Amino acid sequence: MQKIITIRTDKQNGLYDITSDVVSLIRDSKVKTGIVSVYARGSTAAIMIQENWDQSVQNDVISLLKKLIPPGIWEHDNQDNNGDAHLKAGLIGASETIPIIDYKPGLSTWQNIFLCEFDGPRDKREIIVTIIEDK
Amino acid sequence: MQKIITIRTDKQNGLYDITSDVVSLIRDSKVKTGIVSVYARGSTAAIMIQENWDQSVQNDVISLLKKLIPPGIWEHDNQDNNGDAHLKAGLIGASETIPIIDYKPGLSTWQNIFLCEFDGPRDKREIIVTIIEDK
Amino acid sequence: MQKIITIRTDKQNGLYDITSDVVSLIRDSKVKTGIVSVYARGSTAAIMIQENWDQSVQNDVISLLKKLIPPGIWEHDNQDNNGDAHLKAGLIGASETIPIIDYKPGLSTWQNIFLCEFDGPRDKREIIVTIIEDK
Repeated sequence: MQKIITIRTDKQNGLYDITSDVVSLIRDSKVKTGIVSVYARGSTAAIMIQENWDQSVQNDVISLLKKLIPPGIWEHDNQDNNGDAHLKAGLIGASETIPIIDYKPGLSTWQNIFLCEFDGPRDKREIIVTIIEDK
Repeated sequence: MQKIITIRTDKQNGLYDITSDVVSLIRDSKVKTGIVSVYARGSTAAIMIQENWDQSVQNDVISLLKKLIPPGIWEHDNQDNNGDAHLKAGLIGASETIPIIDYKPGLSTWQNIFLCEFDGPRDKREIIVTIIEDK
Repeated sequence: MQKIITIRTDKQNGLYDITSDVVSLIRDSKVKTGIVSVYARGSTAAIMIQENWDQSVQNDVISLLKKLIPPGIWEHDNQDNNGDAHLKAGLIGASETIPIIDYKPGLSTWQNIFLCEFDGPRDKREIIVTIIEDK
């Protein structure tokens, strides 16, 4: 089963928890065992597995990436002024593959699935979810 | 086929080679061609493909991440004092997907599969291995 | 379906666009819906999804990684003098999994698939492409 999750982002840099959407899609698929591929369709966005107890780790991810990849100093800024957003997306990566165990994603207690926005806000960010059964 | 590898970690930060476990599981699965998804179940651990000729690259990975992501300066430290561990895990990523070629992982001579521990020691770290056949 | 793409690299550090090869393999596979796993077989290479409007983002990726991971200061340099190449490969990651939508990779307009070379030039770099159908 393949579906596209669409979300709106309201910040230039931010993490958006999409776990409940992925949980619903797996339940709908009726796949008991397998994998789910979660893919950020956009070269200034990424997928990260991370804790969501509160906002602290999400804020720290944004702070770290701002420190490692400051804006305004990249060759690509002459085109779009978003060189840092592309670099953050490339470093974190567009895809994560998560096991499906007993009709649910095999996350630990503290693992959630996030879309990382690095060039928002955007009216529409697409995440492609593909569920593959292990037969 | 889906199985969970369980390992004990004895350091706060360390890489643990799980290649032989993955090789055994693929052999047991009798899958000739396909993919194997390797997933670290824990938001302060990750999976990395890396060389294992000796300890040097593993030590360098730990040194690099300590330099890029120093401990003790993160908002999340007010909760658990392990903000750096979450950031390292998010940067490296929880999953790698490796091709299966002729009943074996399609690694190069120098590629091995590692669990990266960033918040150990732990009595029990789980790695979920899912093998999908290409039919 | 599983195939190996082989390319030659002509720089020590460089990004090589392999999108058209992956597009051809998916078309040949006649798989309408599923995933494609793209894997860099070599512990000093990696796979990155990134923009290819012009050379600017590719140059910025190389500049960023050189800044974050300078050469010549790693324990592994005593073996092979390529410690930085292993660290870059580990940070970016050996694999990306991309959805297949309607016989094509589900990339956005600006997403392309690159092999990242960190220890070239090399006569032969192998990228393993495995296509899994979602039935």
